[in-house]
Amino acid sequence: MGYRLEHDLLGEMQVPEDAYYGIHTLRASHNFPISGRPVHRELIQAMVVIKKAAAIANMKLGLLEQKIGDAIVAACDRILRGEFDDQFIVDRIQGGAGTSTNMNVNEVVANVAIEQMGGQRGDYTLVHPLNHVNMSQSTNDVYPTALRIAAINLLKPLSEEFAALQEALQKKENEFSSVIKMGRTELQDAVPIMLGQEFGAYAQAIARDRWRLYKVEERLRQVPLGGTAVGTGLNADVRYIYTVVDVLRDLTGLGLARTEYMMDGIQNADVFVEVSGLLKAAAVNLGKIANDLRLLSSGPECGLGEIKLPAMQAGSSIMPGKVNPIIPEMVNMVVYQVIGNDLTITMAAESGQLELNAMIPLIASNLLESIEMMTNAVKIFIERCVSGIEANVEVCNKYVYGSKGLVTALVPYIGYDNATKVADVCRKENKAVEQAVLDMGLMSRQELERALNPYDMTKPGIKGIRRDGV
Amino acid sequence: MGYRLEHDLLGEMQVPEDAYYGIHTLRASHNFPISGRPVHRELIQAMVVIKKAAAIANMKLGLLEQKIGDAIVAACDRILRGEFDDQFIVDRIQGGAGTSTNMNVNEVVANVAIEQMGGQRGDYTLVHPLNHVNMSQSTNDVYPTALRIAAINLLKPLSEEFAALQEALQKKENEFSSVIKMGRTELQDAVPIMLGQEFGAYAQAIARDRWRLYKVEERLRQVPLGGTAVGTGLNADVRYIYTVVDVLRDLTGLGLARTEYMMDGIQNADVFVEVSGLLKAAAVNLGKIANDLRLLSSGPECGLGEIKLPAMQAGSSIMPGKVNPIIPEMVNMVVYQVIGNDLTITMAAESGQLELNAMIPLIASNLLESIEMMTNAVKIFIERCVSGIEANVEVCNKYVYGSKGLVTALVPYIGYDNATKVADVCRKENKAVEQAVLDMGLMSRQELERALNPYDMTKPGIKGIRRDGV
Amino acid sequence: MGYRLEHDLLGEMQVPEDAYYGIHTLRASHNFPISGRPVHRELIQAMVVIKKAAAIANMKLGLLEQKIGDAIVAACDRILRGEFDDQFIVDRIQGGAGTSTNMNVNEVVANVAIEQMGGQRGDYTLVHPLNHVNMSQSTNDVYPTALRIAAINLLKPLSEEFAALQEALQKKENEFSSVIKMGRTELQDAVPIMLGQEFGAYAQAIARDRWRLYKVEERLRQVPLGGTAVGTGLNADVRYIYTVVDVLRDLTGLGLARTEYMMDGIQNADVFVEVSGLLKAAAVNLGKIANDLRLLSSGPECGLGEIKLPAMQAGSSIMPGKVNPIIPEMVNMVVYQVIGNDLTITMAAESGQLELNAMIPLIASNLLESIEMMTNAVKIFIERCVSGIEANVEVCNKYVYGSKGLVTALVPYIGYDNATKVADVCRKENKAVEQAVLDMGLMSRQELERALNPYDMTKPGIKGIRRDGV
Amino acid sequence: MGYRLEHDLLGEMQVPEDAYYGIHTLRASHNFPISGRPVHRELIQAMVVIKKAAAIANMKLGLLEQKIGDAIVAACDRILRGEFDDQFIVDRIQGGAGTSTNMNVNEVVANVAIEQMGGQRGDYTLVHPLNHVNMSQSTNDVYPTALRIAAINLLKPLSEEFAALQEALQKKENEFSSVIKMGRTELQDAVPIMLGQEFGAYAQAIARDRWRLYKVEERLRQVPLGGTAVGTGLNADVRYIYTVVDVLRDLTGLGLARTEYMMDGIQNADVFVEVSGLLKAAAVNLGKIANDLRLLSSGPECGLGEIKLPAMQAGSSIMPGKVNPIIPEMVNMVVYQVIGNDLTITMAAESGQLELNAMIPLIASNLLESIEMMTNAVKIFIERCVSGIEANVEVCNKYVYGSKGLVTALVPYIGYDNATKVADVCRKENKAVEQAVLDMGLMSRQELERALNPYDMTKPGIKGIRRDGV
Repeated sequence: MGYRLEHDLLGEMQVPEDAYYGIHTLRASHNFPISGRPVHRELIQAMVVIKKAAAIANMKLGLLEQKIGDAIVAACDRILRGEFDDQFIVDRIQGGAGTSTNMNVNEVVANVAIEQMGGQRGDYTLVHPLNHVNMSQSTNDVYPTALRIAAINLLKPLSEEFAALQEALQKKENEFSSVIKMGRTELQDAVPIMLGQEFGAYAQAIARDRWRLYKVEERLRQVPLGGTAVGTGLNADVRYIYTVVDVLRDLTGLGLARTEYMMDGIQNADVFVEVSGLLKAAAVNLGKIANDLRLLSSGPECGLGEIKLPAMQAGSSIMPGKVNPIIPEMVNMVVYQVIGNDLTITMAAESGQLELNAMIPLIASNLLESIEMMTNAVKIFIERCVSGIEANVEVCNKYVYGSKGLVTALVPYIGYDNATKVADVCRKENKAVEQAVLDMGLMSRQELERALNPYDMTKPGIKGIRRDGV
Repeated sequence: MGYRLEHDLLGEMQVPEDAYYGIHTLRASHNFPISGRPVHRELIQAMVVIKKAAAIANMKLGLLEQKIGDAIVAACDRILRGEFDDQFIVDRIQGGAGTSTNMNVNEVVANVAIEQMGGQRGDYTLVHPLNHVNMSQSTNDVYPTALRIAAINLLKPLSEEFAALQEALQKKENEFSSVIKMGRTELQDAVPIMLGQEFGAYAQAIARDRWRLYKVEERLRQVPLGGTAVGTGLNADVRYIYTVVDVLRDLTGLGLARTEYMMDGIQNADVFVEVSGLLKAAAVNLGKIANDLRLLSSGPECGLGEIKLPAMQAGSSIMPGKVNPIIPEMVNMVVYQVIGNDLTITMAAESGQLELNAMIPLIASNLLESIEMMTNAVKIFIERCVSGIEANVEVCNKYVYGSKGLVTALVPYIGYDNATKVADVCRKENKAVEQAVLDMGLMSRQELERALNPYDMTKPGIKGIRRDGV
Repeated sequence: MGYRLEHDLLGEMQVPEDAYYGIHTLRASHNFPISGRPVHRELIQAMVVIKKAAAIANMKLGLLEQKIGDAIVAACDRILRGEFDDQFIVDRIQGGAGTSTNMNVNEVVANVAIEQMGGQRGDYTLVHPLNHVNMSQSTNDVYPTALRIAAINLLKPLSEEFAALQEALQKKENEFSSVIKMGRTELQDAVPIMLGQEFGAYAQAIARDRWRLYKVEERLRQVPLGGTAVGTGLNADVRYIYTVVDVLRDLTGLGLARTEYMMDGIQNADVFVEVSGLLKAAAVNLGKIANDLRLLSSGPECGLGEIKLPAMQAGSSIMPGKVNPIIPEMVNMVVYQVIGNDLTITMAAESGQLELNAMIPLIASNLLESIEMMTNAVKIFIERCVSGIEANVEVCNKYVYGSKGLVTALVPYIGYDNATKVADVCRKENKAVEQAVLDMGLMSRQELERALNPYDMTKPGIKGIRRDGV
Repeated sequence: MGYRLEHDLLGEMQVPEDAYYGIHTLRASHNFPISGRPVHRELIQAMVVIKKAAAIANMKLGLLEQKIGDAIVAACDRILRGEFDDQFIVDRIQGGAGTSTNMNVNEVVANVAIEQMGGQRGDYTLVHPLNHVNMSQSTNDVYPTALRIAAINLLKPLSEEFAALQEALQKKENEFSSVIKMGRTELQDAVPIMLGQEFGAYAQAIARDRWRLYKVEERLRQVPLGGTAVGTGLNADVRYIYTVVDVLRDLTGLGLARTEYMMDGIQNADVFVEVSGLLKAAAVNLGKIANDLRLLSSGPECGLGEIKLPAMQAGSSIMPGKVNPIIPEMVNMVVYQVIGNDLTITMAAESGQLELNAMIPLIASNLLESIEMMTNAVKIFIERCVSGIEANVEVCNKYVYGSKGLVTALVPYIGYDNATKVADVCRKENKAVEQAVLDMGLMSRQELERALNPYDMTKPGIKGIRRDGV
C-alpha cells in the first residue's frame, strides 16, 4: 500500500494512501496504544455536527469561502451517515485534552471535503483541517460541547428505559397486589405485606431515577462553544459565537444554549460529576432491586423461593437443571461498573488545572460507557427478567401463617413488654401467636381474630380497630 | 455509684442510677465500642423533635393520655435545649438500622418525662419508652425521617457558605479585572487572560454548587413518618399518619411532606446518595480551585508566584520564613474526605435488603460529617484565604510579554502552518513573536501591533479586527 | 484566666497561661476548626518518642546540651504516660503537611521540659521548641516516621484479632463438621456440604488476612528519619542520622531501619496505600462472612434459618421479640467505612507534589481510624457473634433431603443431558430425584443408593465409586 | 446462511451452521448485549489450557477415552494458536459466575474436536461439551483458576515494564546528578537538591512497585482446580485432583499449586483485591511522577520550566507551536482508570455469597484491563517521555541563586528565630540572604560563604561544618 507524505511541527510522516485521517491522527495513534478501544462513536458524531455548525456559521459571516464551507458540510453529512467510522482510530485514553480526537475529526472532514471538491486526499490547500474545518474553534471549546451533546443523546434512551422499567414494575405491583407475604427487615421476619407492595416500592425508586435522568439534561445544555482556547473567545468572531450555537441547536434538535461564562464551561467538569452522581444513585436503586430479586428467588427448594425469575439459560456446566438469576446478576455487575466509573470521572474532574481539564477524554470514556451500559442492562432486565417474574403464592402465604412476627399487631392491646413475652413463649414452646396469647390469658379469641388478620396488617391502622381509628 | 435494675427480652441489667438512658441503650453501648464517636448531635435533635411531634399527634387523637403526652413534650424541649447531651452514648457505628439510637432517645425522653411527672428514673409505669414515647412509631420510619431533617438543617449553612464563597470570589474577580496574565492549558502557556476572569470562572462553578445544594433540600422533604416497621403503617392510626407530619412541619419550620409511598421511603436510600453526589460535585469544584490557588501562589521565588495567599502560620519547623498554602491544602483534604465518605454512603445505600436498609446509621454518620466538615472548610477558606488573596501584578504581566503564546492571535492572518513556523523560530532562535514575524516577512509592523495587543486577546474576536468582525 | 505573650513570624498572640502548647499550636487551632477531632493519640505518642530519640542522639553527639536534653527526655516520658493528652489540640484535618502537629508536640515538650528545669512556661530561652526539641529534624521526616510507628503499633492488635477470629471460626468448623446442609451457588441450591466446611472456608480467608497484616509491618519499618526537609538531610549531622534510628529502635522495640533513599521516604506515600489496600482486602473477607452469617441466620421462620446468632439486644422498637444480626451488620458498616477511607488515602497519596506529600495528615487520620475501627469490630465480632453461633441442624438437614440438587452426583453415570431431564421431571412432577431416575429406568435402586449418599458428596470423588476412582 | 438445531433445558435453537460455539453460547450472547466487549483473550486462552490439562488428566486415569481426549487436546492446541478467536462471542459483562464463558469454551473445543475426528459440528455424540470437555470440572473451579493464570501471564510484562521504568529513571538520576535546583515542599521554595535526586526518588518508588508486582504472583499460584461446584470436589476423581494441577503446571510453565482448602479458593476473591490494591499503589506512584513531570515541564516561558519533555505531537488545534505533556497526562488517565477499576473489583469481591462469588467475570474484566492498560501506559511512558527528558540547567540554577530558602542552612548557626527574621528582611527589603545576614551582623562573610554553598546543602550535615559533624 502506498503512502502520502504529511508534515507538522515535528517533521514529516508517511500517511497510508487510503487514509482520510492525516499526520496528527497518525502521531496520536502511535502515542496512545493504551486501551485498544476507539473513542465512543456518539462523541465523534457530536464533534462532526459541531464542525458542520461551525462551517455554516463561518460561511454566514463571510469568514469561510462558500465553496469550501459547502464541501465541509457535505463531508460532515457523509460522516454522520457512518461512511467513515473506521477512520477514527485514536485510542479513547489519550493525553492532550482531546486534541487528538479533534485533530482526527478535522483531518477526516477535510479529506472527505477535499474529495468532494475533486481533490486528492492530503491536498490541504483545498480544505485545511485547521484553517478551515477548525475555523473559530479550539479543542477546548469543541470537546466539552461535544461531550454534552453525546451525553444528552445517550441519556434520552436511558431515561426511556427507566420509564419502561417503572412501568414493568408497576405491572407486577398490580399483578401481585393480593399476594400476602412476610416483610423482612434486616432479613429477619417482620410483619406482613403484599408482594405487590414490594414491587411498588421498587417502582417508586425507579420513578425518581427516571425523573432525575430526565431533568439532568437541562444541566448539560449550556455549551461553551465559541470560547476557543481558554474561554475568552480569542480568534472567534463575536457574531460567530452567537450564530454557531443557534445553528448547532437547529442541527441537533437539542435545546442548547451558550454558557454564560465560557471560561467556566471550558475548565470545570463538575456537571459531568453531577450526571455521573445521578447515574450512581440510579445504580444504587438498580442494585438494591436486583439483589432483592436474587434473594426472593433463591432456592428453588433451599431458599426463600417466593418468586420465580424466568429461566434464560442453563446455569451450570456441572449441575444439570440448575437455573441461576443471571439477569439480575448482570445488573449488579453493571451497577458496580458504573460506581467504579463514577470514581474515575470524579478524580478526573477534580484534577482540572487552571484554564483546562486535560482529563476530559477520560471523563468522556467513562461517562458514555456508563450511560450506554446501563441502558443496555435495564432493557434486558425488563425484557428477560422483570416482565416474566411469577409469584410463588403458596410459599408466600405459608411464611405468613407460620411466623411469630404477627405479634407486633398486638402491641396496641397488650403493650410492648407483654408482646415480647408472647414472642418468647412462642419461640421457646413453639406455639402459634394466637395460642400463646390465649394461654397467657391476655386477649380473647374474638379480639385476637380481629387483631391478627394479616391482610389488615398490610394497611395503616391499629388492627382490629377500624382503620381510620374511630 | 448506685444502680437500678432494668430488664428486656434478654434478662436484667444494672443501669447506673443517674443515667437517663436505660437497658436498651446500655446493651447497645456494650455491643458497639467501635468508633468511639457518638451519634451526630443534629440527628439526635431531629429524633427528639419527632418524638415531640408524635406525642402531640397521639394526644390530639386521644391515643396518648394528656398527662403523659405533656410530660413527653416537656422532656423533649429540655433535651432540645441541650440539657441531656451526654446521655446519648451509643456509638455512631451501630448494627440494627438505628434501633439503638431510637431506643436511646426513647429511654432518655421517658426518664426525663418521668421526672417531670415527679417519678423516679426507671419507673416506666409512668412513661414507657416504647408504649408511650415510641407510640405509633418504629425506628424504621423515625430514623430516615430524622436523617432528612438533620441533613436539611446542616445543608442550609453549607448552602450559605457557598453563597458567601461565590461572593468572595466575585470580589476578587472585580479586584483583579485589569490584571493581565497568561492563561495556561495543560500547564503550558496558552493565551492571555485577566486574573479576574480566573476568579470569575471559579465563582461560576461555585454558583452552580450553591444552587444545587439549595435545590436538593426539596428532595429531602418527603418523609416516611407514619410508615412504622415496613412502610405499611401497621399500628399507626391513619389519622395519626396525616397529623404527625403536619405537626412536625410546624415544629421544624421545614417544608416537610409525607412521602407518597412509605415503603419506598423506608427501604430506599438513594436520596442520600443523590445528596452526597452533589456534595461530591461541590468537592470537585472546591478541590480544583484550591489546587489552582496552590499552583498560582507557588514560589515565592521559584514558582508561578502570580498571587499571594494570606500568611496564616509559620510553615516549617526547619525552614524559617517559609509560609505554606495551608488553607487550600486543608480544603483539598476535606475534598478527599468527602469523596471517600461518598463511597461509603454509596455502598451502604446499595446494600439495602428487602423492606429496610440496615446500614442507615453509617449513611447518617458519613453524610452529616461531610456536610459539616465542608461547611467548616468553606467558611475558613473564605475568611483565611480567598478574601485576602493579593495579585502579584508585576509577575503576571512579565509572563505575558515574555511568552510565545501570543502567536495564536496571528492564525487568522497567516494561517496555522505559518504560525507554527513562527513559534518554532521564536523558540529555536529565542526571538519575540513580533520580531520573528517581521523577519519572516509575514505581516507588517502596523498589523502586528494591532493583532498582538494582549488586552484585546482576553475578549472574543479576531485581534486587530473590530471585535464584531466587521 | 491569664495569658502569656508569644510571637512568631506573623506577630504576637496571647497564649492561655496554663497551656503547655504555644503560639504555633494556637494559630493552627484557629486555622483548622474543621472536624472537631484531635490528632490520633497513637500518632502523637509516636512523635513524642521520636523527640525523645532525637534528644538522646543529639546529646550523644554533643549537639545538644546535656541539661536541656535531659529535660526533654523527662518531658517526653511524662507525656508518654498520658499526663498532657489534652494539650494536643490541633484538628486532625490540617493543612501544612503535619507541621502544626509537629509544632504542637515541640511546644508541649518544650514547656514541660522548661518546667522540669524550674522555668516558666513560655521561657524558650531554657528549652526552645525548634532549636532544641526539633533539633536535627523537620516535620517532613518526623511525621512519616511517626505515622509508620503508629501504624505498626495499631496493626499488631489488629493482626492478633484476626488470629483470634481465625481460631474462633475453626472452632465452629470443628463443631459443625458433621452437620450436613445444602451448598448454594448464586443463592441457588447446589450440592451438599458440611456446615463446618463453610466456617473452614471463612477461616482460610481470614488466615490470609492475618498473614498479610502481619507481613505488611515489614514494609513500614523503613523510616526516613534524618532526611529533614526534603530528604537530603540538610542540618542533620551525618552521625545523627545513623544514631537516631538506632535509638528509636531501642525505644520503640520495633525493628525500624533507616530508609535507603530518604527523599523517597519523605515524598512517597505508596506504602500507606499498600497497607490500606490490605485492610481493604481484609474488609472484603469480613464483609463476605458477615453477609453470609446474616443470610444463613435469616428468619427465624421465614428465612434460611440454618444457624442462630447469639441475641445481643432487642431488635425493634415496634416489633416485640425481634432479634437482629446487629453484630455482623456492624461489621459490614466498618467494612464500608474502611473501603471509603481507603479511597481517601489513595487520593491523598496520589496528590503528592515534588519533594513532599502535603496530605499526609489526612492519610494518617484515615489509616489509623481504619485500623483501630477494624480491630474493635473484629474483637466484638468474635466475642458477641462468631463464638456463640449455633447450628439449626434440623433445618440444615431438611433442605438436603428435599433438594433436587443431588442429581449432580448422577452425571458420571447418566451424563449431563439425561441428568438435566431428570431435574426437569423432578420439578415438573414434584418427584424426588431417586424416584424420577427409577421411573425413567436410568439406574437401578442399588446403584442409586450408593450414588445419592449426600454425606459422600461433601468429599471429592465420583459418588458410589470408591473415592479414589478405582 | 444455514443453521443447525441444538437443544438444552429450555428447548431448541438455531445455531449458525458455521459456528463452533453452540446453543449455550448463543443464549448467553442474547442475554448479555451489554458492553459490546468480548471476554479478555488471555482469560479464554487460560481456560483452554485448563481444558487441555483436564483432558490429559482424565485420559491418564482412564476416565476419558483416548480417542476423544486426543481430539480435545488437538482442538485446544489449535484454539491456543488463535485459529478460533472469533468464536468467543459472549460479552464480558455476563451474569452466571462465568458459566457462559465456560460453556462457550466447552462448545468451541467440542466442535473443533468433533471436526478433528471427522464429524460434523453439533454432533455431540462424538465429543460432548459437558460430558467430555468439561469432565471433572465446574465453571466454579475452572474460572477462578483461569483468572489466576491470566493475571499471572499479564503481570509478568507489567513487572518487566516497571523494571524498565526504574532503569530509565535511574539513567536520568545519573544524567542529572550534578544539576542543582530548588526543592519544593507544598509547592513552596524549600532547600536545594539535585535534579538527579528527584529522579532517584521516583526510581525508588517504582522499584517498590516492581518488587510488589513480582511478589504478588506467588499469591495467585494457589488454584482451586478440582474443587468442582463448591469446592468439595464432587464428581472429580481424587486422583484427578492431584494429577490435573501437575499437568497444568507443566503446560503453563507457571509454579501453580493446588489450593489447600478448595472451598475457600472458589468462594473468596480477596486475592484479586490484593492484586488490584497493589496495582493501585503502583498507580499512585505513577500518578505522582506524571504529575511532577507536568509541573516541572510547565511553561515553557510561564511555568517552572526546569525540564523539557520530548515533543510527541502538535498540542493544539488553535495554538500553533504549543506542545503538551500528553504522555504523562495519558499516564494520569490510566492511573484514575485503574483506581476506578479497583473500586469495581472491591465491590464485586465483597459481594460474594456463600459458596460462590457470582461477580467474578466483572473482577476478571476490570483486573485484566487494569494490568494490560498499565503495561501499555508504562511502556509508552518510558519510550516517549522519560527516556527523552532533558534538563533546563539554566533555569534550575537560576532558581537556586534567587531563593531565600537558603536561609535554612543558617539555623544551626543563628537559631530558628533569627533565621525567621532574616527571611522576613529578605522578602520585605528584597535582599539576598547573604546580604541580609551581613547587614544584621549575625555572621561573618567567611562563615556565610561556607554555610551557604547550595551544592553542600544537597547532602546530609550541617553546612560549613565538615559533613561528618566533626
